[in-house]
Amino acid sequence: MSKRIYFNAFHMNCVVHQSPGLWVNPDDQMHKYTDLATWVELARLLERGKFDALFLADVIGIYDIYGGGPGAALRQATQVPVNDPALLIPAMAYATENLGFAFTSSVLQYHPFIFARLISTLDHLTKGRIAWNVVTTYLDSAARSLGLQGLHPHDQRYDIADEYVEVCCKLWESSWEDGAVVRDRLRKTYVDPSRVHPVHHAGRYFKVDGCHLSEPSPQRTPVLFQAGSSPRGREFAARHAECVFVTGPKPVVSQCIRDTRERARRMGRNPKDILFFLYAKIITADTEAAVQRKYVQYLEQLNYEGELALFSGWAGIDFGPIDLDQPLEYVETNAVRGLMEALSAGGSGRKWTLRNLVKGRSGVIAGTPERLAEIFQEWVELGVDGFNLGYVTTPGSFADFVDGVVPLLQRRGLMQTEYGEGTLREKLFGKGCARLPASHPDAQYRADNGSAQEGPHS
Amino acid sequence: MSKRIYFNAFHMNCVVHQSPGLWVNPDDQMHKYTDLATWVELARLLERGKFDALFLADVIGIYDIYGGGPGAALRQATQVPVNDPALLIPAMAYATENLGFAFTSSVLQYHPFIFARLISTLDHLTKGRIAWNVVTTYLDSAARSLGLQGLHPHDQRYDIADEYVEVCCKLWESSWEDGAVVRDRLRKTYVDPSRVHPVHHAGRYFKVDGCHLSEPSPQRTPVLFQAGSSPRGREFAARHAECVFVTGPKPVVSQCIRDTRERARRMGRNPKDILFFLYAKIITADTEAAVQRKYVQYLEQLNYEGELALFSGWAGIDFGPIDLDQPLEYVETNAVRGLMEALSAGGSGRKWTLRNLVKGRSGVIAGTPERLAEIFQEWVELGVDGFNLGYVTTPGSFADFVDGVVPLLQRRGLMQTEYGEGTLREKLFGKGCARLPASHPDAQYRADNGSAQEGPHS
Repeated sequence: MSKRIYFNAFHMNCVVHQSPGLWVNPDDQMHKYTDLATWVELARLLERGKFDALFLADVIGIYDIYGGGPGAALRQATQVPVNDPALLIPAMAYATENLGFAFTSSVLQYHPFIFARLISTLDHLTKGRIAWNVVTTYLDSAARSLGLQGLHPHDQRYDIADEYVEVCCKLWESSWEDGAVVRDRLRKTYVDPSRVHPVHHAGRYFKVDGCHLSEPSPQRTPVLFQAGSSPRGREFAARHAECVFVTGPKPVVSQCIRDTRERARRMGRNPKDILFFLYAKIITADTEAAVQRKYVQYLEQLNYEGELALFSGWAGIDFGPIDLDQPLEYVETNAVRGLMEALSAGGSGRKWTLRNLVKGRSGVIAGTPERLAEIFQEWVELGVDGFNLGYVTTPGSFADFVDGVVPLLQRRGLMQTEYGEGTLREKLFGKGCARLPASHPDAQYRADNGSAQEGPHS
Repeated sequence: MSKRIYFNAFHMNCVVHQSPGLWVNPDDQMHKYTDLATWVELARLLERGKFDALFLADVIGIYDIYGGGPGAALRQATQVPVNDPALLIPAMAYATENLGFAFTSSVLQYHPFIFARLISTLDHLTKGRIAWNVVTTYLDSAARSLGLQGLHPHDQRYDIADEYVEVCCKLWESSWEDGAVVRDRLRKTYVDPSRVHPVHHAGRYFKVDGCHLSEPSPQRTPVLFQAGSSPRGREFAARHAECVFVTGPKPVVSQCIRDTRERARRMGRNPKDILFFLYAKIITADTEAAVQRKYVQYLEQLNYEGELALFSGWAGIDFGPIDLDQPLEYVETNAVRGLMEALSAGGSGRKWTLRNLVKGRSGVIAGTPERLAEIFQEWVELGVDGFNLGYVTTPGSFADFVDGVVPLLQRRGLMQTEYGEGTLREKLFGKGCARLPASHPDAQYRADNGSAQEGPHS
């Protein structure tokens, strides 16, 4: 059997995630995002299709760069209104047995002491199926909403995230020893206090002085996802990430994977302990002609105002005054010039306009199931381990994939036909890997490691 | 029909909430608190028994005063380990239709911008069945865990809570007008940006500058619970609370209710817009003899170390060095003397020792269903509207109540036989009361009120 390919569904607790405009399509049901039934049905569909996980993105601010305000994002419901992703998971977990749940939480969002308990609770309730996508937040509006003047400079955001993960891992890995919960009815002792240790952390950005509130969950530390591709982002990924979310043209993705694995190796990790997931929005049908019809309809329904609200937010550039079809090389601002340099790293040599930027960034992979299997394998040969599948419509896109593509991938040995046993980490990395491997830098905080541990107290 | 009595189940996402030692009882299943099935079954039981709500308490620190450390609390699993309560709600909400869900969240726990979205998300997912118990946190260990030097002085904690509620209500009530979500396919407009307004709040303790991330939920502001009974606590309750949780001997409770209602009246509220819930731990059986047997068994299984860990945490006094049966009037410390003065306000004139303090504070109401109905009505005549029922064992105590007591109360017209329609607030206060009444001080922030609103932007 070939190496199996991993698949996550890429989603968000809102109306419009990555396909602005498509909410007008009657196949799209995401106006029901406030209804738990929508999510429970999606989770059951994904589990039927043997997806590894549902990956829930999140933002804690509004895209308000485009046009100088949040008007475009609001009109197109583009990642706003946006509800808390973590609260969807318990209902979906209760309705499924094996599907993993990854969700985004920014290091700006919670004090790490509170967040550590949130994760432990979810990991308990899902019986070890939780992954955390660590993000630093790129929306200045989020920082202002939280009472800050604005975001910290880019690399400092990763310094903050490094310390945040450190604090969380100290709480998850070092505070409660495995044998702490004894539940000894005869001795009337539920917890052995000599095996519970306070964390004393006084760093540059965070301070914690106390015991973790939760007993150890099946995974202790959740499976760690990360998505940044800058040099500092890769360094962060190499230190912490077990799964990395990548996007872009083939040379860019390939180089990012090689570089990140090499950085991980230098940190003493096995480079194969990191899985790389490519973002892709799948359009599929039985025949090439039907695929083409669907793709044309997608392009017709795609809303450029909504797309550019997102794109302006990511790039930090207001694209509002720029015509959709104006060649960007003639837009004489430093910001756009920087963007052009980044794009030319892709080496396509094409003439960039906002219109083809939008089309190009959309990550669409269109094809019959046979064609998709070929495309997936091309990416796998470049070093990609799996895919984060965005949607054109929900449940449409996922139903098409589960019913149309999954059986073919399974027949070819490219996708799992049954879930592995154990926690999400075991399902991804194999039996016995319920927790962080010893070579993971964040395993250093483990209670049995000694260095972070204190003497017993009572 | 007599005025119906309200009933909540009082619980917590942990092994031992208010009955330390009872985990050794085979009837108690709370060692399965990490399993969603435990909670879904409890919610279904409560809904079958027409309970108004499940009230989930919480702490974000460890009880570490008794014996100078967390040893006692840990040994007895007394409110530690303790997981996040909010994450239990979605699975229970999906399995029920009418049961309300109240949960405790401290104003130390989240930035109000993040908390406001958490509540809006839950209110959406439950279709308007959420209540928030606003607490200021009494455990110094919580403050230290969050990197603070310690708790703020008592009254200042309520100043912080006042501002916290203010910020949340601005986000819930003023940021999105009711007509903001238009979902107009023809005009390709999901949200009308002219009806979404940023909140600009720069106060003494909190700063927010941005739009609420969630569209209006069924209740907007959740039903507001509060529990503090100090003068400053009552002032806070009179301003914000719609439900107040009370405990103590009859004269104390009665005076607290009268005083709080009078304070509310002076703030322009209808004093009847506040419901008072008495804490009670029910022990019931068919005959007086069986009740007595159960009560004796409860006292035998009650663990004093666990009880005193809680009691030391609440009082801020280490009871570790004091003998269980030593008359407290001879303990010559200022802290204990202050406690004695508070207790003598109850007017019982009894001789207090730690042993009878523990028994006295336990809130047990034991009796046959007939006797319980009489006791409930005595309290109702004092001004109590309902009860927060703690448990001896779970599901034991609630099953006993639902099967043994509820039918009798329903026959006598003392308990609802069907749920009212609409949101939790409507179920509690009547049809048409989905949202905060106009006379509620926090309704001043409403978008249609004008004062907190800005001109349209886009």
